[in-house]
Amino acid sequence: MAKSPETEHPQKAFGWAARDSSGVLSPFNFSRRENGDEDVTIKIHFCGICHSDLHAIKNEWGFAHYPMVPGHEIVGIVMKSGKNVEKFREGDRVGVGVMVGSCMSCDYCNQDLENYCPKMIFTYNSVYHDGTANYGGYSDMIVVDQHFVVRFPDTMPFDAGAPLLCAGVTVYSPMKYYGMTEPGKHLGIVGLGGLGHVAVKIAKAFGLKVTVISHSPGKETEAVDRLGADGFLVSSDPLKIKAAFGSMDYIIDTVSSVHALTPLLALLKPNGKLITLGLPDKPLELPMFPLVLGRKLVGGSDIGGMKETQEMLDFCAKHSITADVEVISMDQVNVAMARLAKSDVRYRFVIDVANSLSK
Amino acid sequence: MAKSPETEHPQKAFGWAARDSSGVLSPFNFSRRENGDEDVTIKIHFCGICHSDLHAIKNEWGFAHYPMVPGHEIVGIVMKSGKNVEKFREGDRVGVGVMVGSCMSCDYCNQDLENYCPKMIFTYNSVYHDGTANYGGYSDMIVVDQHFVVRFPDTMPFDAGAPLLCAGVTVYSPMKYYGMTEPGKHLGIVGLGGLGHVAVKIAKAFGLKVTVISHSPGKETEAVDRLGADGFLVSSDPLKIKAAFGSMDYIIDTVSSVHALTPLLALLKPNGKLITLGLPDKPLELPMFPLVLGRKLVGGSDIGGMKETQEMLDFCAKHSITADVEVISMDQVNVAMARLAKSDVRYRFVIDVANSLSK
Repeated sequence: MAKSPETEHPQKAFGWAARDSSGVLSPFNFSRRENGDEDVTIKIHFCGICHSDLHAIKNEWGFAHYPMVPGHEIVGIVMKSGKNVEKFREGDRVGVGVMVGSCMSCDYCNQDLENYCPKMIFTYNSVYHDGTANYGGYSDMIVVDQHFVVRFPDTMPFDAGAPLLCAGVTVYSPMKYYGMTEPGKHLGIVGLGGLGHVAVKIAKAFGLKVTVISHSPGKETEAVDRLGADGFLVSSDPLKIKAAFGSMDYIIDTVSSVHALTPLLALLKPNGKLITLGLPDKPLELPMFPLVLGRKLVGGSDIGGMKETQEMLDFCAKHSITADVEVISMDQVNVAMARLAKSDVRYRFVIDVANSLSK
Repeated sequence: MAKSPETEHPQKAFGWAARDSSGVLSPFNFSRRENGDEDVTIKIHFCGICHSDLHAIKNEWGFAHYPMVPGHEIVGIVMKSGKNVEKFREGDRVGVGVMVGSCMSCDYCNQDLENYCPKMIFTYNSVYHDGTANYGGYSDMIVVDQHFVVRFPDTMPFDAGAPLLCAGVTVYSPMKYYGMTEPGKHLGIVGLGGLGHVAVKIAKAFGLKVTVISHSPGKETEAVDRLGADGFLVSSDPLKIKAAFGSMDYIIDTVSSVHALTPLLALLKPNGKLITLGLPDKPLELPMFPLVLGRKLVGGSDIGGMKETQEMLDFCAKHSITADVEVISMDQVNVAMARLAKSDVRYRFVIDVANSLSK
């Protein structure tokens, strides 16, 4: 008979879990594996709430396993380190992002692209090498293979830095991969949410000219005055959109719902690049004339590898970039999820795990 | 009153023109401009029939101007060269492709990307700098600015080499731009027509492993035995297609009709690239999960710049690459168009202009 989550491993753990597709989170006693030779055990201090946590707990992508402890923007302090661990020692500030394992031997792993390894293991709602379920960061502690742990910069605050582990690398990686970091070039950022607001900050640090494209006219002041964007377009204003046709070198599109790509492709100059990060559940319409006649491309990107995640954190530390966060206690998490579903957050909820998680 | 095509310029010319959207071609007396200081006057020996000629003469793209002399795969001999022309002299073998002019001063022209210049001038069905209509290569001679003329390699036959000026550079350019030339990598080529068959030859010269994906099972022997492809997939065989999922690094898609991108994206490995060259008149469906989760991209490409066209010709000469052609006389051109509409040609018609064009 399979052991229960509470007894299958030797280290006791406690967090909040969803039990079914209602997505309602509640206190959950479970356990973590013993700290292995390659592992670090981390006391979790803060964990960001990513929009994908909301999709996952409600089983909107169709592969949920319950009970599910979400959370993959995890920061904390090393409590134990295995005998083969050289990168970290007790007391170090560290972070864990979207993945905790991969095959470590395929072409992708060998190129520091563990995120594209066919056997990549997600931080939660997945099964680890030992066959047991993974639980995420809405919990007091976690045991992770050192390869999937990053050093959290000394100068970076835990709370506002946590979201970089997913949102940060998700926008940083495509900017590097698709060659979208040339100073002075013009980047459009579609959607000013958790990803978009970090993308503005990172793009400005690269020296890009940034225009935010949002359906919310009310975000203009914030985008320009506070986040540092150079321009703002309301996506529902066809005249202003049309006036900007052919003006952008690159676009990062963070929108997750079905939407039109045609006006975005028209905003690009010839040879422009449109990078989509969202996962609409239906195909989008792709017009071929702008692609062919303007040698434009539509590409995707999914988080980043471990080496690049460290590089991104160090880049953000150097440029004093963090997310804009609203810190909550664990008992506010269900209210936060309801607000997140209405995009009522600027721009990321972060759970103060260490100070609010009590049985 | 505007002058007639026959009298507006001093050099007499003769070709075959379409007069309306029936697309029927018939003999046409017109004229060409005097050879200017930057111009060369070329006696046309052969001209390839590109599938876009068929679209154009039937006004299928909606911007036809009649009378229209099509043809943009032009090879011939220099008869006159202007006083500023240093690249060419009388008797040189030369080629002219899809364009005969551009602004020569924009960012694209300055990067040898005249093909993406917003003021690029097509070889026919367009208006030249002087305000007069351009006529293409189904004619006895043409006057072209030296910048838009390429040197035709000595060892390359006129007839089989002519199609490279459009079909050749159209497949060569994306292979270079999108980084699809790494020896040993696996390239899928969708559609074995004018573009596809040249793509197989060029890809093999780059050292790629090539699989042809075609809806015609009958083309397998030819693709593999004669053109040198390493594999063949019938696009309507879902089992074999599925067995090849995740096996390709790149795909070049030459299909012009509306078709499914989802199986093509599935054939790609993570980080694979799907390059589309056709111009379906309706948008295609683009599924976002493979793009994002596999960091795949869909990109377009349109012919190539003049420098790259010369590079491609020299590459093809070095590797003894030409198109497979069926040479026809000018009076067979309407029959050839009807066969082309049914894809009944392997793989390119080329008109023996010099030997068959008589009044």
